[in-house]
Order: sequence, then C-alpha cells, then structure tokens
Amino acid sequence: MSWSEFGKRFARKTGARELMEDLGDALASDRDICMLGGGNPAHIPEIEALFTAEIERILGDEREYRRMFANYPSPAGEERFRSALADLFSREYGWNVSAKNIALTSGSQAGFFILFNLLAGQHPDGTFKKILLPVTPEYIGYQNLGLKEGMLSALKPSIQELGDHLFKYRLDVENLQIGDDIAALCVSRPTNPTGNVLTDAEMQQLMRAAQEANVPFIVDNAYGMPFPRILFTEAQPFWNENVIMCMSMSKLGLPGIRTGVIVANEATIDAISSVNSVLSLSVPSVGAVLLHDLVASGRILDVSENIIRPYYQAKMERALECVHEYFAGLDYRVHKPEGALFLWLWFPGLPITSNELYLRLRARDVLVLSGHNFFPGLQEEWTHRDECIRMTYSQDDGMVRRGIAAIAEEVRRAYE
Amino acid sequence: MSWSEFGKRFARKTGARELMEDLGDALASDRDICMLGGGNPAHIPEIEALFTAEIERILGDEREYRRMFANYPSPAGEERFRSALADLFSREYGWNVSAKNIALTSGSQAGFFILFNLLAGQHPDGTFKKILLPVTPEYIGYQNLGLKEGMLSALKPSIQELGDHLFKYRLDVENLQIGDDIAALCVSRPTNPTGNVLTDAEMQQLMRAAQEANVPFIVDNAYGMPFPRILFTEAQPFWNENVIMCMSMSKLGLPGIRTGVIVANEATIDAISSVNSVLSLSVPSVGAVLLHDLVASGRILDVSENIIRPYYQAKMERALECVHEYFAGLDYRVHKPEGALFLWLWFPGLPITSNELYLRLRARDVLVLSGHNFFPGLQEEWTHRDECIRMTYSQDDGMVRRGIAAIAEEVRRAYE
Repeated sequence: MSWSEFGKRFARKTGARELMEDLGDALASDRDICMLGGGNPAHIPEIEALFTAEIERILGDEREYRRMFANYPSPAGEERFRSALADLFSREYGWNVSAKNIALTSGSQAGFFILFNLLAGQHPDGTFKKILLPVTPEYIGYQNLGLKEGMLSALKPSIQELGDHLFKYRLDVENLQIGDDIAALCVSRPTNPTGNVLTDAEMQQLMRAAQEANVPFIVDNAYGMPFPRILFTEAQPFWNENVIMCMSMSKLGLPGIRTGVIVANEATIDAISSVNSVLSLSVPSVGAVLLHDLVASGRILDVSENIIRPYYQAKMERALECVHEYFAGLDYRVHKPEGALFLWLWFPGLPITSNELYLRLRARDVLVLSGHNFFPGLQEEWTHRDECIRMTYSQDDGMVRRGIAAIAEEVRRAYE
Repeated sequence: MSWSEFGKRFARKTGARELMEDLGDALASDRDICMLGGGNPAHIPEIEALFTAEIERILGDEREYRRMFANYPSPAGEERFRSALADLFSREYGWNVSAKNIALTSGSQAGFFILFNLLAGQHPDGTFKKILLPVTPEYIGYQNLGLKEGMLSALKPSIQELGDHLFKYRLDVENLQIGDDIAALCVSRPTNPTGNVLTDAEMQQLMRAAQEANVPFIVDNAYGMPFPRILFTEAQPFWNENVIMCMSMSKLGLPGIRTGVIVANEATIDAISSVNSVLSLSVPSVGAVLLHDLVASGRILDVSENIIRPYYQAKMERALECVHEYFAGLDYRVHKPEGALFLWLWFPGLPITSNELYLRLRARDVLVLSGHNFFPGLQEEWTHRDECIRMTYSQDDGMVRRGIAAIAEEVRRAYE
C-alpha cells in the first residue's frame, strides 16, 4: 500500500500504540503477566455494582435504552448529560457554564487530538504554532497527536528533594517564556505519568502566563476533580473562559465506553462539535446516559470521594511501602504520589537506560513503561529521561508486589 | 480563538454537521417534528428485546462486564469479537480472513476519515491523490473528510428509467478512467442516499478497474450483508486483498455505541490500528462484546434476514405506496429502493432548488435532506443535483405519511 503523508506519520508504531498493544496482549494472554504497564483502572467491586444497577435500570426503561443505544446524539454529545454536568459545575464550583460549554469526545485522547490540531500546527497566516508542555514528564499520548511533526514544545522541571526517597517536579518559573510560536499551554493534573499534582500556586502562575500571552490553558484532568478524584492532596479545581478543562470517564472504571469531556468557552466547544461530526458523526452515548443520574443527583461526588479515592489511596500506600521494602539499599527516588494510578520511579545514575530496563522486565513478563516516553517535545539532552520508569498500581496487590520485586531485582542486576 | 489550517477546515459548518444537528435537535425537541432527515435506525421491538437480553447476560457475568466496560482493548478493537467475525466471514463466504484482517473504529465515519486520509491527499513523493466516487449520488459524510481540500473526485452516473415513476442510477462505464491521481475507489452499497444497490456486474467492473490501476476498492457496506441486511434485492457480498470492506453496527439499531468494522488486507489493518491508537487510544468495546455471541453463533444472520430486513422492507413498501398516492399528477421519480433506509425523490424540472424545498419543509417542521449534498467531489454542473431530496422511512409510519403529504404539498406549491 502507498500511504499519504498522514499515513506515513500516523501508521508508524508509536509509544502510545506500544502501550496499548502491551495492554491488549496482556489482557488476552493466558500467561501470568505482571501488568504494571498500562493505565487500566482498577476493578472496584462497589463501582461495578453501582454501574450494573444503573444499566439495569436503563434497560428497563424504553426511552432510556434508546437514548443510550439506539439514537444518534448531537455532535457535541448527548445533550441532557451535558446540561447535568454544567449544573454540577455551577452548583459545586460556581463556574458560569451551560451545556454550550461542554463537548463530549470519543475518549479523552480524541479530545486532545482535536484540540492540539485546532490550535497548533500550520496557521492560515503562514506561522507554525506549538503546544507548550511547561512541566515534563508529561503524558505519552500527547507525543504523536500533531498532524505535523514538531507540534510540541516542552520545558524541564526543577526537582525538589523531599527526603525519605521522595521528590517532586516543580514548575521552573524562571524558564517559562511563552513566545509567539506557542498556541496553548497544556498540563495533566494529576500528572500522568508521575502522580504529581501541580500546586494551586503553580496553576495560577500558568494561568496568568497563558492569559498574558493570550493563549488557552489546557488542563488534562483525567484523574482529578470532581470525578474520578484519584487525588490524595488538596487541589482546587478551576475554570474560566481561557481554560480548556478535559476529563475522562475511563478512570471511573469505564475505559471500554470511550468518552471524554471538554469544558471550554463556547467558540471552542462549537469547533470541537464540528470536528466531531466530521471525524465520527457523533460520540458514544453509553457513558453519558449511564452517568446521567449520578451526575444530576451529585452522587458522583460522594462515590468519587468515598469509594474511588480511598481505594486508590490504599493501593498507592501499599505499593509505596512495597517499593521502600524491596528497594532498600538501592539509590532510588519515588515521585510523591499525589494522584493518578502510577508510581514514578527514578534511579539516579542507573547504569542501563530505562528502556533497557523495560525490555529486561518485559522478557520476564513484567510490563512497565520506560520513562523516556514521557518527555514529549523536550529537545534538551537530559540523562534523567533515561533513569525513570512508570508503574501502575491499580491492579491486584499480589501482582503489584511481584512486579516491584522484579523491578528491584533487575535494577540491582544492572549494577552488577 | 485563532484556529490552525486544520481548525479553519474542520471547525466550519458542514452538511454532515447540519444533518446531525437537525437530528439531535429533533430528538431533543418537544415540538412534533416530522423527522425524515437523519439516518437514525428504526426502533424494532424484537431487536431491542434481543440486545437487552444480551446486555443483561453480560451484566451478570463479571468477566464479560469487564470486557465490555472496564478494560482497554487492543488498538485494532476487541480481539475476541474480531476473531468471531473473521470466522463468520470464512464460514459463510469462504473469505480467507483472520482477526488480523479486521479493525474496529469509533463508528463507520471514523473509519472513512482514517482510510481516506491514509490513502489520499499529499503523498511523500510530492503527488496529490484523490478518492474516486464512481457513482454519485454518494454519502454526504464523505464530503469533508479530507485533511486537504479537493481530496474527492466523482463521476456522474447514467440514469436508467424503469417505468412506473421508478429509475436507477447506473455506473457510467464509458467514463470510468482511473488516472494516476486516484488513490482508491469508493462506493456505498446499498447506497446512501439513493437506496441503489450496484449490480454484481457493476461491482466486478469496479473491482477489475481498481485492480488494474493498483488501487484499493473501498466498499461501504453499512446497510448490507451479512448484517444488518437492509437489502431488498439479491447482491453478492465479496472481498479480496484489494477490497476494503466497511461495516457498521449503527443500522442494527446501535448508533449510540459508535462502532464500525473494517475488513482489509493486513497492512491496511495494521495502519488503521496505529491511527486508532493515536486518535483515540482504542475504540469502544460495547458493541463488540454485545454482538459477540450473536456473531459467533451465526444467529446475527438469522436476525438480520428474518427480523431486520423484512421490517424495513415493509416500511419501504408502505412509504413507496404513500409517495405514489400523494404525488399523483406530479412529475416525480423515485429511485428503485433496493436497500438502506431512504427514498430518493427526483422532481425533474422542479422550479425551485432542492435546498429551497428543504428550507420550506423545515419551516413547517418536516426535516428531509436536500439532494445537492450528495454529490461530493462532482465538479460538473448538473441541474439534476438540485432536483432531488432524500427522505428516511425508518421512523413511525404516521410520521412518514405526514411527511410525504407535506413534501407533495410543497412541491405542488413550487409550481404555482
């Protein structure tokens, strides 16, 4: 087959595809694979029971069934759900938003594809603009979204040592300069892959910088407030007309339904709706109908705060203990886990690259992700990039423990 | 907001968006709108009961629940379903396909976005290639898929008068020339919007022409065999390594789940998987798990043949009768309805454009689609384009009758 330029660019193997294939293979495999690689959410029994009950109610109601399965929604996504979500934001946070400020997408990733390409790349005036990631490490999925190469720009963070083998990436304010070639700022908070939660002060600095440069500030809130609230620290959610906030239903336990949410000014939502209608006519309604009553009643807040957050927090604490236990005597750091599903491990001076470590672990059926994938757009050389791995702690505790033991073994071996 | 070139191109209002908004507005409205505009499938009680039973079974089985909702599938789509579908094709049609020949997409439209842009547009060797639509009228959704303008080329059909106010578009073999600038051929069969089913002989001619030009032949089989089989004539399904066959779950009654299916050679499927992983990480699993048992057992064939097809055929026959009744005395033609959900009405010499007719009907809450939207890529002037409308007969019979009466009234008025 002869591919177009788009084909050449997008048909190649990317980090995101490697990740998704590892995940798919592991789920399909009969081997006993230690899956610490992907971002699959945990199977929380109370949540599964809750969603099952909601779907059963919907199946028993012809109108609701049709809304979920049998009708095309508007290009911006199922209208009633978008209204309910806008009401929740108004009620809880005082944001001045309506359904016109909300679009659904075929998963959060699809939302970033649309947003990055709407804003950055070749502009009609001949300029070429980029998305600035002000605090790497950042999400692997941003890497290859651009229709053109070179659509990302990124900054190194500063590193704050916190003692007890913990550290935290901080916004390097000194180097934050937003040139004319920047179309938008983007951060994930909680951050995938590090579990970092940028402080409220850092967020304010970024928001001001974006406003001064007259570019939007994209906040990837896939793990944050108000749901799924996989967040172990205080952090203020915020929105204004210059903020594009992105959310996901996946980390509630629903990755199979592919639904993302974008909250933005009306012009941006209108543009996203148009792109939705071209790219996929409309987006799935399953999640929008499934979550409607939970959002309309506000029960989703309680579920997130009292079921989902504590579940992950307990898993995080067990995983972290386990790391300290197995890594004793090694030179290691863990990013302070403030949210999301991951531990980000840093081995200063590791004699092999993190990618080599990934390959050695994969050879023994332990899947993690090499940290070098998580610096999309960063041009500078930095050995730190090759000294980190991301591991997921959302799965079975025994598996997580075995995985951590294997990582420690391979790290030790690298020094032999 | 300042949009990129992609933004300027995709954020505008398109025919597809107008259609989807009309549909969404009508479904959300409290007014009594006569919705003959969209392509929403009918709500067939037996089908809804069948799918409800399948979902209830899945909800009762933890593994199946997780497969449907709680796990990310591979970028090509849920593996087990793809295998079951490949087995069905092998068993029923003798096609030499495995799961590696099948990719799922976030709806059929998303599949066309990927395919058209993989194949056509700017190529690395500097050439610019197009998708050829050899028999217009063709599907409105193809119109704006290209990342670049001008990615479609199209041919006029010849018109075969069949008597009794019926006609049929035929492939104009004389004009079928495939130049170096053509990346692929594409037809919908049954055709949206006309209900045409290209004959087996025409399909063979197109297949040979594609093979000689060494370009793939894309067949949009959203309404065809083996499901949903909204097909009222004999037509042989076919596939080979040079054919890219696209299917949809929407017309089974599941537009809310957004799942398309592509059957193609392995290289094409591999490329689609990569694009899936960048565009949306993975595609929804809901439909793949919902339909698995029906496909694996072959029961989907029986359901399509004995429930879905006769349901639509009866609706089509009633709608056609109704047209003949209300249009008596007018100069009108109906495309022979051989499949899909539509009647395509042609008013030779209509004193107003079909778009004006659409607007007048919309003003009285009767939604149809103007025919001029369905000639994507056709450069030639042709008054025929402005003399046709598409109306859907899948909804309530009383509504269809009222709609047809209103169309006849407005057409008569146009001559006054």
